[in-house]
Amino acid sequence: MNPIITAFERSPDGGKGLARDTRVRWALEEVGQPYDVRLVSFQALKEPAHLALTPFGQIPTFENGNFTLFESGAIVLHIAEHYEGLLPKDSVARTRAITWMFAALNTVEPPILDLVTANIFEGDKPWAQERTPLVKDRIRVRLRQLSSYLEGADWLDGAFSAGDLMMVSVLLRLRMSGMLDEYPSLAAYVSRGEARPAYRRAFAAQLAVNAPAS
Amino acid sequence: MNPIITAFERSPDGGKGLARDTRVRWALEEVGQPYDVRLVSFQALKEPAHLALTPFGQIPTFENGNFTLFESGAIVLHIAEHYEGLLPKDSVARTRAITWMFAALNTVEPPILDLVTANIFEGDKPWAQERTPLVKDRIRVRLRQLSSYLEGADWLDGAFSAGDLMMVSVLLRLRMSGMLDEYPSLAAYVSRGEARPAYRRAFAAQLAVNAPAS
Repeated sequence: MNPIITAFERSPDGGKGLARDTRVRWALEEVGQPYDVRLVSFQALKEPAHLALTPFGQIPTFENGNFTLFESGAIVLHIAEHYEGLLPKDSVARTRAITWMFAALNTVEPPILDLVTANIFEGDKPWAQERTPLVKDRIRVRLRQLSSYLEGADWLDGAFSAGDLMMVSVLLRLRMSGMLDEYPSLAAYVSRGEARPAYRRAFAAQLAVNAPAS
Repeated sequence: MNPIITAFERSPDGGKGLARDTRVRWALEEVGQPYDVRLVSFQALKEPAHLALTPFGQIPTFENGNFTLFESGAIVLHIAEHYEGLLPKDSVARTRAITWMFAALNTVEPPILDLVTANIFEGDKPWAQERTPLVKDRIRVRLRQLSSYLEGADWLDGAFSAGDLMMVSVLLRLRMSGMLDEYPSLAAYVSRGEARPAYRRAFAAQLAVNAPAS
């Protein structure tokens, strides 16, 4: 039995790979674990069957036998801990890689989510034009720090890890804004992530759902 | 040698316990591990010595011998994994507790951080009055879901865990807004967290720094 993840029946981004199932697909591809996908409609996200998997009505979830998880961060960490390939064996290096997962999710992603909010949920508000540059400047604080930390390194802390997987996934949300291009070392870092065969398979798999070839 | 954490020399909240060192202090108190604190000025956060600990110039950091960590989530998880008392022994229950840590940090906290931004960084903007209710409504979506999940339970998933420690810490940011009181089961949940002797010691320790008795 393969693990089963949930994904949007139709992703709001139309197949750009920004829905959080892509992070989990990517992790499963990196470790070479086949998986099954159950697609969920927006309506079904609010129904008891899905809420029994996650109280927040989100995707992805992860089911493996009688054991269910939610939160893409927790799922990726679980995959990284139970299969080979996403965490170093050395315990200090392993803890550092996990630190980068939290940094991606709790320091870098929140201001980026605020930009998503500004563009999508508040894009028609009278303050949108004046406020968006403030939101972007808060993101730039984090991009500048991360860029300065990375310098010429390929990955955050030695070899590619679950920390990079999460950081690249978070930064990909900025692709459309053009902001990544302001920081060439970050743009190159994200491109290195996207070039990984495991990412390409994950991206293709979500695209096949969201923008099937006609 | 005790582990050393960093904290603000003077917390922006004046001792309300909302700076993220409180989460780490609480975790260390729960597991009974004494710790030392190095206080850092706002200026020093941006200096090379601190940036060598964390590229994002934040507090807290965690040093234990030659091993350093940043990100309160990562530090709390490290403490929970290396000392007894914050994670169940059963592997499924342990993974679920970690899931709740991620839910606190990546699903519940981001909209709450947006309210902090609205109140503090954008409190003087022309849109503040009209926008704040939208921000609060996005928080209420999560509070309603969490409240509905908790029902009458004392903690999120059986016994108190690192997941509860993080969720209570995140919800405490809403205390001043009065929003917790709209969800009596959540208000009671947060109060149960605050009543724990380990939380009280952690709170008192940060208060002693930020509002020393005259």
